[in-house]
Amino acid sequence: MTTPAPAARAYRRLSVEERRTQLLAAALRLFAHQPPEDVSLDDVAEAAGVSRPLVYRYFPGGKQQLYETALRSAADELERCFNEPPSGPPTERLARVLDRYLAFVDGHDAGFSALLRGGSVAVTSRTTTIVDGVRRAAADEILAHLGPEPHGARLRMLVRTWIAAVEAASLIWLDEEKRPSVPELRDWLVDHLIALLAASAAGDAETARAVRGLLALEHGDGRVGRLARALAPLTEEASRLRSPGVGRP
Amino acid sequence: MTTPAPAARAYRRLSVEERRTQLLAAALRLFAHQPPEDVSLDDVAEAAGVSRPLVYRYFPGGKQQLYETALRSAADELERCFNEPPSGPPTERLARVLDRYLAFVDGHDAGFSALLRGGSVAVTSRTTTIVDGVRRAAADEILAHLGPEPHGARLRMLVRTWIAAVEAASLIWLDEEKRPSVPELRDWLVDHLIALLAASAAGDAETARAVRGLLALEHGDGRVGRLARALAPLTEEASRLRSPGVGRP
Repeated sequence: MTTPAPAARAYRRLSVEERRTQLLAAALRLFAHQPPEDVSLDDVAEAAGVSRPLVYRYFPGGKQQLYETALRSAADELERCFNEPPSGPPTERLARVLDRYLAFVDGHDAGFSALLRGGSVAVTSRTTTIVDGVRRAAADEILAHLGPEPHGARLRMLVRTWIAAVEAASLIWLDEEKRPSVPELRDWLVDHLIALLAASAAGDAETARAVRGLLALEHGDGRVGRLARALAPLTEEASRLRSPGVGRP
Repeated sequence: MTTPAPAARAYRRLSVEERRTQLLAAALRLFAHQPPEDVSLDDVAEAAGVSRPLVYRYFPGGKQQLYETALRSAADELERCFNEPPSGPPTERLARVLDRYLAFVDGHDAGFSALLRGGSVAVTSRTTTIVDGVRRAAADEILAHLGPEPHGARLRMLVRTWIAAVEAASLIWLDEEKRPSVPELRDWLVDHLIALLAASAAGDAETARAVRGLLALEHGDGRVGRLARALAPLTEEASRLRSPGVGRP
């Protein structure tokens, strides 16, 4: 072939900003599907069709700088997933956010695992700060849907613990070869938050107010109604509990 | 004073095993209340009343070896907290385990935070393996109380996500200067698991079986009955939900 390969052509044509974007895109693709240990600067250079010194010219900090820049970019993408207009049944809004979040996890599987599991040398206090920023963005978004600021300690703890549960579920889902299906996992995570809100409402006035406000926006044939009806026999049985061995009236 | 200080006396008298135990105890106390970055080998030597070379003789790997040995010892202590005989109302068993767990968190505050937050240079793939082992022990113990093996994927995911939620709640509790009180946090965590089990029982036959088995062991005036009665008005309201704007019959 006499036509130069696309990468070789690109080598000459790209502006500084385009080149940087191209290198970052190559790094993101590699770091998404492999733990950072398994990605070398040579891999990034090869994937971008450029030389190793060129990668160094743009990222003088080498692999760690590339990793952190790629992580910052992935974190921005993930934070955009959380944006959801405050209209319609709240559980449907949550389901849509979870669909986008789970698509992100699916598309960044091995990188997501390596980052959140810790123990990698690439995971430093700087990367932890980026991840914590994403968690905070997720919590702020959910709290905004739950009611106006300021939010009490119980409601904030509830949301942050549920986010931790979602992260854990995502890691287990990746370990279990992405089973169950995304819709099943998403529905379970929505039910988890509904159940947690309901249980916390029993002992916290602010949560109870938030829950009643949300409930007014749900549809009768929607998620909350279905869950409540499915739970009715169990809660009925539990509320009529007698001590073991004591007969029921 | 002519009497030698206790540490100086101990320096001469201890056997190899006693000396090792003493050094480890000193390291454990320091690592419990400070992030590993803030603990030096000199601190450990001073706390144990020995010289720095003596610490190196017992722990040739230096601070990292001491940290990992202390962590292994703390992990063993924490795993013992999870042991609970399978008798009495299951939610009372869980409350007792959580009381012991939260006492452990209280007694290892800064070290617990530094370890679980990640981003510390002392947190390596070896320390992550130890922490994962503790999580697995906790999950196995809870699953054993939920019913006989083998446990299905949903029940295992449920337990592991709840454990992640407990960890997150513990870190928030430490950040918030140990508020709310331990009994309040413990009760909320118990309610969280009850709610999660109930919500999952609605869509998973194995969880439903486990929940009915557990329910039979609860007392009417116990946690499950109280929570169910407190939730009754809310679930009643939710199960009678109509679409917004549509009048109720």
